[in-house]
Amino acid sequence: MAINHLPNKNIWGQALVDNLINLALFEDIGSGDITTNALIPPGAKGEAYIIAKEDMILSGIDIFKRVFQLVNPPTPPFFKGGLGGIKFKDKFKDGETIKKGKIIIEMSGNMRVLLTGERTALNFLQRMSGIATLTRRFVDEVASASPRNNKVKVIDTRKTTPGLRILEKYAVKCGGGVNHRLGLYDGILIKDNHIKAAGGIINTVERMWDDKPHLMKIEVETKSIKEVRDALKCGAVDVIMLDNMDIPTINRAVRLINKRALIEVSGGVNLQNVAGIAAIGVDYISIGALTHSAKAVDISMEIK
Amino acid sequence: MAINHLPNKNIWGQALVDNLINLALFEDIGSGDITTNALIPPGAKGEAYIIAKEDMILSGIDIFKRVFQLVNPPTPPFFKGGLGGIKFKDKFKDGETIKKGKIIIEMSGNMRVLLTGERTALNFLQRMSGIATLTRRFVDEVASASPRNNKVKVIDTRKTTPGLRILEKYAVKCGGGVNHRLGLYDGILIKDNHIKAAGGIINTVERMWDDKPHLMKIEVETKSIKEVRDALKCGAVDVIMLDNMDIPTINRAVRLINKRALIEVSGGVNLQNVAGIAAIGVDYISIGALTHSAKAVDISMEIK
Amino acid sequence: MAINHLPNKNIWGQALVDNLINLALFEDIGSGDITTNALIPPGAKGEAYIIAKEDMILSGIDIFKRVFQLVNPPTPPFFKGGLGGIKFKDKFKDGETIKKGKIIIEMSGNMRVLLTGERTALNFLQRMSGIATLTRRFVDEVASASPRNNKVKVIDTRKTTPGLRILEKYAVKCGGGVNHRLGLYDGILIKDNHIKAAGGIINTVERMWDDKPHLMKIEVETKSIKEVRDALKCGAVDVIMLDNMDIPTINRAVRLINKRALIEVSGGVNLQNVAGIAAIGVDYISIGALTHSAKAVDISMEIK
Amino acid sequence: MAINHLPNKNIWGQALVDNLINLALFEDIGSGDITTNALIPPGAKGEAYIIAKEDMILSGIDIFKRVFQLVNPPTPPFFKGGLGGIKFKDKFKDGETIKKGKIIIEMSGNMRVLLTGERTALNFLQRMSGIATLTRRFVDEVASASPRNNKVKVIDTRKTTPGLRILEKYAVKCGGGVNHRLGLYDGILIKDNHIKAAGGIINTVERMWDDKPHLMKIEVETKSIKEVRDALKCGAVDVIMLDNMDIPTINRAVRLINKRALIEVSGGVNLQNVAGIAAIGVDYISIGALTHSAKAVDISMEIK
Amino acid sequence: MAINHLPNKNIWGQALVDNLINLALFEDIGSGDITTNALIPPGAKGEAYIIAKEDMILSGIDIFKRVFQLVNPPTPPFFKGGLGGIKFKDKFKDGETIKKGKIIIEMSGNMRVLLTGERTALNFLQRMSGIATLTRRFVDEVASASPRNNKVKVIDTRKTTPGLRILEKYAVKCGGGVNHRLGLYDGILIKDNHIKAAGGIINTVERMWDDKPHLMKIEVETKSIKEVRDALKCGAVDVIMLDNMDIPTINRAVRLINKRALIEVSGGVNLQNVAGIAAIGVDYISIGALTHSAKAVDISMEIK
Amino acid sequence: MAINHLPNKNIWGQALVDNLINLALFEDIGSGDITTNALIPPGAKGEAYIIAKEDMILSGIDIFKRVFQLVNPPTPPFFKGGLGGIKFKDKFKDGETIKKGKIIIEMSGNMRVLLTGERTALNFLQRMSGIATLTRRFVDEVASASPRNNKVKVIDTRKTTPGLRILEKYAVKCGGGVNHRLGLYDGILIKDNHIKAAGGIINTVERMWDDKPHLMKIEVETKSIKEVRDALKCGAVDVIMLDNMDIPTINRAVRLINKRALIEVSGGVNLQNVAGIAAIGVDYISIGALTHSAKAVDISMEIK
Repeated sequence: MAINHLPNKNIWGQALVDNLINLALFEDIGSGDITTNALIPPGAKGEAYIIAKEDMILSGIDIFKRVFQLVNPPTPPFFKGGLGGIKFKDKFKDGETIKKGKIIIEMSGNMRVLLTGERTALNFLQRMSGIATLTRRFVDEVASASPRNNKVKVIDTRKTTPGLRILEKYAVKCGGGVNHRLGLYDGILIKDNHIKAAGGIINTVERMWDDKPHLMKIEVETKSIKEVRDALKCGAVDVIMLDNMDIPTINRAVRLINKRALIEVSGGVNLQNVAGIAAIGVDYISIGALTHSAKAVDISMEIK
Repeated sequence: MAINHLPNKNIWGQALVDNLINLALFEDIGSGDITTNALIPPGAKGEAYIIAKEDMILSGIDIFKRVFQLVNPPTPPFFKGGLGGIKFKDKFKDGETIKKGKIIIEMSGNMRVLLTGERTALNFLQRMSGIATLTRRFVDEVASASPRNNKVKVIDTRKTTPGLRILEKYAVKCGGGVNHRLGLYDGILIKDNHIKAAGGIINTVERMWDDKPHLMKIEVETKSIKEVRDALKCGAVDVIMLDNMDIPTINRAVRLINKRALIEVSGGVNLQNVAGIAAIGVDYISIGALTHSAKAVDISMEIK
Repeated sequence: MAINHLPNKNIWGQALVDNLINLALFEDIGSGDITTNALIPPGAKGEAYIIAKEDMILSGIDIFKRVFQLVNPPTPPFFKGGLGGIKFKDKFKDGETIKKGKIIIEMSGNMRVLLTGERTALNFLQRMSGIATLTRRFVDEVASASPRNNKVKVIDTRKTTPGLRILEKYAVKCGGGVNHRLGLYDGILIKDNHIKAAGGIINTVERMWDDKPHLMKIEVETKSIKEVRDALKCGAVDVIMLDNMDIPTINRAVRLINKRALIEVSGGVNLQNVAGIAAIGVDYISIGALTHSAKAVDISMEIK
Repeated sequence: MAINHLPNKNIWGQALVDNLINLALFEDIGSGDITTNALIPPGAKGEAYIIAKEDMILSGIDIFKRVFQLVNPPTPPFFKGGLGGIKFKDKFKDGETIKKGKIIIEMSGNMRVLLTGERTALNFLQRMSGIATLTRRFVDEVASASPRNNKVKVIDTRKTTPGLRILEKYAVKCGGGVNHRLGLYDGILIKDNHIKAAGGIINTVERMWDDKPHLMKIEVETKSIKEVRDALKCGAVDVIMLDNMDIPTINRAVRLINKRALIEVSGGVNLQNVAGIAAIGVDYISIGALTHSAKAVDISMEIK
Repeated sequence: MAINHLPNKNIWGQALVDNLINLALFEDIGSGDITTNALIPPGAKGEAYIIAKEDMILSGIDIFKRVFQLVNPPTPPFFKGGLGGIKFKDKFKDGETIKKGKIIIEMSGNMRVLLTGERTALNFLQRMSGIATLTRRFVDEVASASPRNNKVKVIDTRKTTPGLRILEKYAVKCGGGVNHRLGLYDGILIKDNHIKAAGGIINTVERMWDDKPHLMKIEVETKSIKEVRDALKCGAVDVIMLDNMDIPTINRAVRLINKRALIEVSGGVNLQNVAGIAAIGVDYISIGALTHSAKAVDISMEIK
Repeated sequence: MAINHLPNKNIWGQALVDNLINLALFEDIGSGDITTNALIPPGAKGEAYIIAKEDMILSGIDIFKRVFQLVNPPTPPFFKGGLGGIKFKDKFKDGETIKKGKIIIEMSGNMRVLLTGERTALNFLQRMSGIATLTRRFVDEVASASPRNNKVKVIDTRKTTPGLRILEKYAVKCGGGVNHRLGLYDGILIKDNHIKAAGGIINTVERMWDDKPHLMKIEVETKSIKEVRDALKCGAVDVIMLDNMDIPTINRAVRLINKRALIEVSGGVNLQNVAGIAAIGVDYISIGALTHSAKAVDISMEIK
């Protein structure tokens, strides 16, 4: 399995992720871990491992490791005060399935760093793996139902936890999903509120066409067969979103569009109805729940 | 109902919340909302409202409003470019119950600001209200089961979304819960990993006693009746956590402790078993799921 | 004339512009304007005006005004120390032509603020107006030469001054030009180095197609008729860039492409040859010199 | 040739330069180089070189190299994701003359880093070398015309690109020029607007004398022989600026001053008239065009 | 002697200390050390040592060393420009006594770094050692006077230099003192102004009890025997502060409290009266002068 | 008395001061003032005053007031949560003498803000007034001893508290002293370590002369009559510092220099010997103790 590590790829990811980890460490550690600092000598060493308490898809193992590194930044020698780096033995990679009871990773190094970083590192790993695990369930449902010649894609939304979007979109990829636009700046999606505010689909698409960057496509949200017809009339629409339609309506819309635009189904999709939608053979099914309603996976850290 | 607005209270809260909102706006808006900017003239005005799509406890209405203010910061006149402030008509306060279909708040003002801020503002509100709503269910269970003379408190953990702790702990209060320590710096909690690393409960508490700030109490995690006994022997333990014990063991521990320390039950608590624990009459029940596994509440914004 | 104020439109613009102005003020003022602070009493008032020393297109008048506001931020009353805000009388708007000798704007207020902010404010205004003025010359050339039914657009590049891109792209719009993608993140442009690194146009476009965000188009750089042919073969190419071709070759390429893709001419374009290219009837002519080689327009500030 | 690397010398330079590069990388890369990331595998290696497309004086080669390092910061091992450092083979040093067609520097390493950093690195190098190249032309003119016993110096102004002053002043040194004060904080220059605001040269210098830091000299701008006389009367003036005077007036002023103060000629200096001014034998000729109107030198990067 | 290095222990300390050093370096170096940069070639090497000009307790030697490291950050190779790291030979550790005339530490490395960092490094070391030295005098007085079975502790206050609290509290520990709460967030201390504002001790403690975090104790300030009685009545008071009482009153209060609460004496304590207070056998004596009125110790740096 | 408000004058001051206050508030308030927040309702109002507990020269009253404003930033309406601004009644201005027992300023407004900001505001005011008070004692000594025709000036050094230099230099001015250079960037002072490193005074001054900014003077430190002679030989020395000389040597040096350079006496100056030095009639006496060894003045805040 080959996942392209989103947070690794560019300066934004790098900076955003470190900023986020520091924010999380700061809110947890504040002026110091008074329990650990009182109990554990600065130079004490130890070993620990992380264990899956339920079946899961792994996501965020690099973030998990990065947390400990930011607890203990690789500063100059005379600031080390006996703190050593943490060493890791990876057992799994992001995107892989881990069975309940398996050890995910082993760690050794400075005991204070292990204990102080534990909760923050787990909070990231549990949330990201929770999203990957839920995504995989949707992806599996869709894969089994898709028409042979039309691989339907599970795609995320902008309904992410504020500040964590880049990590959550990465977790969706670990689960086998595909990313929609990252934000309002890298894709055009005309929603019902835009249409209301600008006065009808045809008007709206025309105005968009005049002012849009020439390297971008146009997606339009539709809520009825009539709106699908309007969207098709514009000519300039590249992707049509079918929002909150029932299965017969989706079916009708798909036949109406007839490959003249890519089709994204959105709204009210869940594990019960997703296979039915996939079977129709649309291009994308977007699911807010992947990110806004995933539960944390149960993972715990044990000191050896 | 009187909720003390945590994020309002101090400089940290104020700065953290604004930082978080800006982070969220930035990851969503980036170099600009190309759809809205193309479709809506800078000076266009509009009205919108937010509606509950399911029963919920409200949390985060001030954050929701603050988002729009940071999309449109109150800068000097010649930078306003026709953007006006957004006006709000509050219908509910944080902590109140809202029935499905009710309007939560009405808004009017610059249309671009309304459309560009919508998703980020909702992402905060849906997540925070989700936590408050789940917390309320636990609180109600506990309230109905608590002994009359012993009001058991529902309390949160440090298992929060990285970077959002201050908001999530506030949401717990909106739901009727109580906050445990904010982080590692403002409370002492000796966990099993500390005890393993430092060598037994008695040793550990003694070492803690020598080095702890004189205005702080000591809480110790115990996993068995034997460990409860050890904790009691130390004399210096103010709070005993009963971790992952079944109900008969909790019962035994409570009788053994006999008011010599406050009691917190933790681990594996859910809506099915929480009433049974509350009925025993402990002081606190801490529940990680309040923050790590709450689902977003369904709320949507409509342009009039 | 209607220019959509780019830096005004969104949070990124707002933050970037203020950051840039503060950077510029800081590098100029540092620990204080020792000349002005010694000579002018804190509360002294004065009047000044800005005058065009050559014909120009105005760009950056809001930035000019913002500079003085950041020298003298609207802080609380007891920090004012006699410093008052600066008042402005606008004579021209961005995008308008100003003749040599005309007053551009009049200002009155605190004398220290006027003198300390002068150089930084002018540095912005002179550079931005320089770009707008040069752009207008290209736009006028192109307008007079374009085929009647095919309005050729003058478009900028990423060859901007580091850190000032958003302002320089805005200045191009003030001059009547159009913006290409803002950066590497909001548009796909496959350049010769990509093709070399990935192995041929056809291979490259195919790989791009598999991994690209579904709301983005594909532009490919071509250096010969053969490469244009390859690009057309791919089917998936939306825009073809003709890079550094002479006019006969451009002509051949345009006939070959025959409306199957948008056409952008790039490389070695100057005021001498731009009309000839425009006359062929391509869609875009991109010109690095608009931003990387514009001279500052001569503007000075006089105290009355 | 020995150029003292300004940006290297101190904490301010170091911090300012990195900040500026990050700003430039950020505005270009944003949420990711979508073209390169889709086309080039994370671990791919490559070679490239930079070539002069016209005769030039080099300036900014360290900044050029630093850009690639900040695209790929030397972070901990587990964040490397296959990205390796870039290796450079220098062919020239800042301040040296490079003929058209010569290779300036060779590079090898991670292909993504090479492609993503290219434009930003070139934008710095082209602008800085443009300033150095223009400065050298002025310096050569002045050197050939200066009286033998009086080496006239070419000196810059504060008319620099906002935010880039430290780099542009360094580029002036690479071209053989000398730096005037860095900003308003490290030198006293009484300009005509100060004199107008404070009431006459004599008054103004007196007031300056009372309040100035005791380790600083005083320079005064004069616009006529009368003002030169006033400046000389003050006694306390160390440097006299002759602003926008024609050559006969400069000649008269030089004889009048007669070594009682250093002399700086300023205003309206260009490649046509600079030798004539130099021949008079003043101390400094300051030229705004060095920084505000230099064109970018043509340099391009080729993948091998 | 074993001092636990406070600034080393956690992310807050690490970040705060570096931030503070950078602030100090910035205010001193600004745009460059013009004297050193003109006189010393970039690559020159040298040796230096630091010498005590009076008897002292050492505090801050790690901060001293860190200053030179931040003058010369461990950046990538091509930015080193001949600057090498500074090497140190420690002669003493924090908390140790150093006699007048002794060498504290020897240094060798880049001469520019040594000269540019000198003043800032000494400013930290002299202030911190001044606090440690004064604290030690109080600690020695108290140690000789304390009852055998009741080791009275010397404790600091929040009367620290703004921004330097973490360093000054660390210096108090080096001198043998103990730290009170770090700030308003990690300990509860009800002062007279709180009592006035909330209406009497009993009322106040009750209200505090209801809302306080369950892992914190309560300390109350009392100004008279009557207030001590009120505090005792509350039951919930863990620590009683005797503020500005004379020795007979302190004696009476101690007998009255009779071990029912810890006792802290505060207000007007000096080297003359501290032994008398210690002899009574209270738990803590808090002394603002430790931090707000310590003089810098005389230390100087010599180039060999 | 006319004191020019240094922190008010420029962007650096404004930014540095706010940054410093925020740093100080942050280290004190952290995650919240738990005592005040529990005891005082958010909307409670109150009055307070600040009283001098000893004779003093006031310095920092604007900083004092600014602290409360940053506790309670003037944010948008819906974030005010009942917090009102604090109102002040000034009784004295910076630089004025205040007798023990006098009220310095009266305040009214939100009670939480008053109580939470108290300590930080006082820490600034007490330290700054301590410096002003000590400076005034030196200034008075010097004024009474100076020759009639030669007003000797008391001048500060760079021996300031790290991070607080701008405030401490301002406090020196409030006390009647004069500021030396602000840092290493705005004045040239060749010290003994420079001379050692560069090889003799004459060599050193020559090298300095070649590379120094043309608007700066040169000061040289001398330790003996021989070194004074060397400094005079250079011709280019504008100011001579007599370092650690006894009074007869100073006398000899003054006669030797004979007005050919300004004279600064430095090293080992205290309240006992300062008048003797002043009587000789030098230009400046610089005193490190003004800033590195001033005690905090005793000031307290009372709630009415």
